[in-house]
Amino acid sequence: MNFKLVARITGMTLLLEAVTMLLPMFVGMLYGETPVPFLLSIAITAAVGFALMMGFRKADHSFYAREGFFTVGLIWVLFGAFGALPFQFCGYFNHYIDCFFETISGFTTTGATILTEIESLPKGILFWRSFTHWLGGMGVLVLTTALLPFLGLSSNFLIRAESPGPVKSKLVPRAAQSSLILYSIYLGLTLLEVLFLKIAGMNWFDAFNHSMATAGTGGFSTRSASVAAYGSPVIEVIITVFMLLFSVNFSIYFLIITGRVKQALKSDELRFFLCVVAFAILVITWNIRDMYETVSVSLRLAAFQVASVISTTGFVTADFDKWPVLSKMLLVVLMFVGACAGSTGGGMKCSRILVLYRTCKREVRSIVHPRAVTVVRLDGAPLPERTIQTTGCFFVIYIFLTFCMSLVVGLDNFSFTTTLTSVITCISNVGPGLDVVGPTGNFQSLSMLSKLVLSFAMVLGRLEMYPILVLFSRSAWSRF
Amino acid sequence: MNFKLVARITGMTLLLEAVTMLLPMFVGMLYGETPVPFLLSIAITAAVGFALMMGFRKADHSFYAREGFFTVGLIWVLFGAFGALPFQFCGYFNHYIDCFFETISGFTTTGATILTEIESLPKGILFWRSFTHWLGGMGVLVLTTALLPFLGLSSNFLIRAESPGPVKSKLVPRAAQSSLILYSIYLGLTLLEVLFLKIAGMNWFDAFNHSMATAGTGGFSTRSASVAAYGSPVIEVIITVFMLLFSVNFSIYFLIITGRVKQALKSDELRFFLCVVAFAILVITWNIRDMYETVSVSLRLAAFQVASVISTTGFVTADFDKWPVLSKMLLVVLMFVGACAGSTGGGMKCSRILVLYRTCKREVRSIVHPRAVTVVRLDGAPLPERTIQTTGCFFVIYIFLTFCMSLVVGLDNFSFTTTLTSVITCISNVGPGLDVVGPTGNFQSLSMLSKLVLSFAMVLGRLEMYPILVLFSRSAWSRF
Repeated sequence: MNFKLVARITGMTLLLEAVTMLLPMFVGMLYGETPVPFLLSIAITAAVGFALMMGFRKADHSFYAREGFFTVGLIWVLFGAFGALPFQFCGYFNHYIDCFFETISGFTTTGATILTEIESLPKGILFWRSFTHWLGGMGVLVLTTALLPFLGLSSNFLIRAESPGPVKSKLVPRAAQSSLILYSIYLGLTLLEVLFLKIAGMNWFDAFNHSMATAGTGGFSTRSASVAAYGSPVIEVIITVFMLLFSVNFSIYFLIITGRVKQALKSDELRFFLCVVAFAILVITWNIRDMYETVSVSLRLAAFQVASVISTTGFVTADFDKWPVLSKMLLVVLMFVGACAGSTGGGMKCSRILVLYRTCKREVRSIVHPRAVTVVRLDGAPLPERTIQTTGCFFVIYIFLTFCMSLVVGLDNFSFTTTLTSVITCISNVGPGLDVVGPTGNFQSLSMLSKLVLSFAMVLGRLEMYPILVLFSRSAWSRF
Repeated sequence: MNFKLVARITGMTLLLEAVTMLLPMFVGMLYGETPVPFLLSIAITAAVGFALMMGFRKADHSFYAREGFFTVGLIWVLFGAFGALPFQFCGYFNHYIDCFFETISGFTTTGATILTEIESLPKGILFWRSFTHWLGGMGVLVLTTALLPFLGLSSNFLIRAESPGPVKSKLVPRAAQSSLILYSIYLGLTLLEVLFLKIAGMNWFDAFNHSMATAGTGGFSTRSASVAAYGSPVIEVIITVFMLLFSVNFSIYFLIITGRVKQALKSDELRFFLCVVAFAILVITWNIRDMYETVSVSLRLAAFQVASVISTTGFVTADFDKWPVLSKMLLVVLMFVGACAGSTGGGMKCSRILVLYRTCKREVRSIVHPRAVTVVRLDGAPLPERTIQTTGCFFVIYIFLTFCMSLVVGLDNFSFTTTLTSVITCISNVGPGLDVVGPTGNFQSLSMLSKLVLSFAMVLGRLEMYPILVLFSRSAWSRF
């Protein structure tokens, strides 16, 4: 392992993080708040980053996959560790672990919070929370567009599918150019949402914060009651639409921009995603029909909560913990399913579920026709068997780890539902779970150990597990 | 589909079922009970069986895999439907669906009950409940030894591994002879347990009932409080040991009988099973240490409950629903894991979990060493890739179906925990779940729809899913 180069790269990204902290500082100053917490954080982060960068100038340039995975994992954790400093210095958090949990939750675009009273926080701090979502979402796009394929995980079709443009649809010849289009779409959609929310009656500050949290499919709100606080159906509908927009594979937007709408609408994953969303909304609307005045209210609330959960954003406008168990169970299933690959959303991803479904169907068919050789197709093209196996292992590991981490969180002795859904919501980067960690609850009362384990779950889920698991594999550390 | 032959075979097995009902009838008469409910049931079952058998004498003999799966599925369902008749006629059940649920629970060796007051039932009926377990366990051994391999599911190593002797270890040259040894072991172990329980102070009736329920890893007791009713640590320890004995792959006993103890102890699955059991007992003993007077009591209760759940028997001596959530979560994980392949136990089976674990480990390793070709081994021998894929699909389908059926059971609007664990405990053929369906609860209050879905889950789990899923595959019905 070329630790020197890893340290140098990490140092550079920490410097970058220090720079990003300037923005929330300025926002805070705009509202007359003291810049001290941010100045301190920037100083420390920049100092460590600079020291790492300059201290390892002589690093040789051998950089293999394991260095890559180690760097990616390390960056996400260190971004959490240093990004937590403004929270630590602002004095509104009880413990550094709480700050770390909140920041990891931000950068992984989870949106699980340990805060009980959000409105009382300084504007700069609130902005930093939402900004971590936006940066995290951007980071995920960079990761899946450029980094992971570069590190050899491109053998996995999903990672390739996640890189919108260059590999999958070859729309633009050069990766740099297509990345630029990608980030433009991300920024453009965010600003569009800001505009809509402002017109719908939000102030600029809230509009920016909620838009950034939607873009990253994060879910931190500037209000304790989340989006429910505004009591505005229009705002609710706008955010519903944008949550869904940000859970779609960004390569779809490439296709649409270049006028190939037909091809875009033919995407298996998109169709599957829309079917699941429609099915879930219908079932839940029916299931909660007696709880609200009119069917249209039920429909609106069902749509918002479904969009929020499947996009793994985690905003809430209704306390779904009080909904009938069918609705709750369906939402938990949606947490596992997650958004489309190549979006900023989390979860297992619709394309994986679809591939697994088709693989299982083939398996059953092969019992009846043992000699028939059939391939599993996605968007009409046959998938390599290697990819199918990777997808299967992904599912197995996802479930295995969910249970393992539930055992550790179980030490806190909250209810069975709390324990299980806290892990599911964190590994899938959703935000709220059920019961204690439900829509009106938070993660404050969990133990420090649980908070650390759940932070780990968030990073695991966000990086789609393999990069982290590689670090725990003996073979990554030997024979080199 | 050769329906005529299917009908003829089904008819023959129904006749067999009619014959088995004679035993509980005689037991009841021994205690001075009326034989009428049984006579009626026997008459109906025999009449239908006879009609089917004689009505389709002219069936041609073409019998393919799909006929086989259809027959197996049908037999299990019809055994439930006709085996429910004595319950229906005895007048102690509210509804025929309840009787059906109870009987399916018996034959699939699940042990989930809808009864609230067990002691008041006639002895004959109680004996029939336990006897269905014993017959079901025997049926599973026949199924996995002879039937499924014969129907082409032998390409699956687990089925082969499940056939103790003939295929795997080739101990005895002829299948019939080795089957005989197998059934002798089953009967011998059952009688041994009867003897031990009698010596420990049970009466003959209870000893026979509990031994049959242990042998099939079923879990129906003659007492509402299950084994806890006896308040005897000795009985508890005896049953703990026998539950574990019946969850071991029966081919291990072949090896031991023929003096190859060393080879038997080298079984990967056995070692994995014993490690999991030991780990779970230790963790739970520690977790519940404050709830009981001494550590030895905690240890005994932990051991019994762990053995009961992992063997998928479902006897209880402690209300584990009141245990800390870590213990509950661990027990739920054990429900999924289940016993060893080739035993009468249910769940996913230890060998599958082990194979999946090793496959995932290989997957992670292959990211670091993309060009290294490695095989997954079990007991030292490399597993075919085909088997690995079948195992992966098995896991995925198991989880998929658990969620799907939870959605349907969710319609009843019991708690999240009740809903989820009722499905898990039924698909894994355990018996008790948590909350409403917990150790001191039962399935009485569930709706008819849920009872039917859970009956389906029990059959699905018992037949290891594929035979049933084939029936839902279009390709099983076309092109022939």
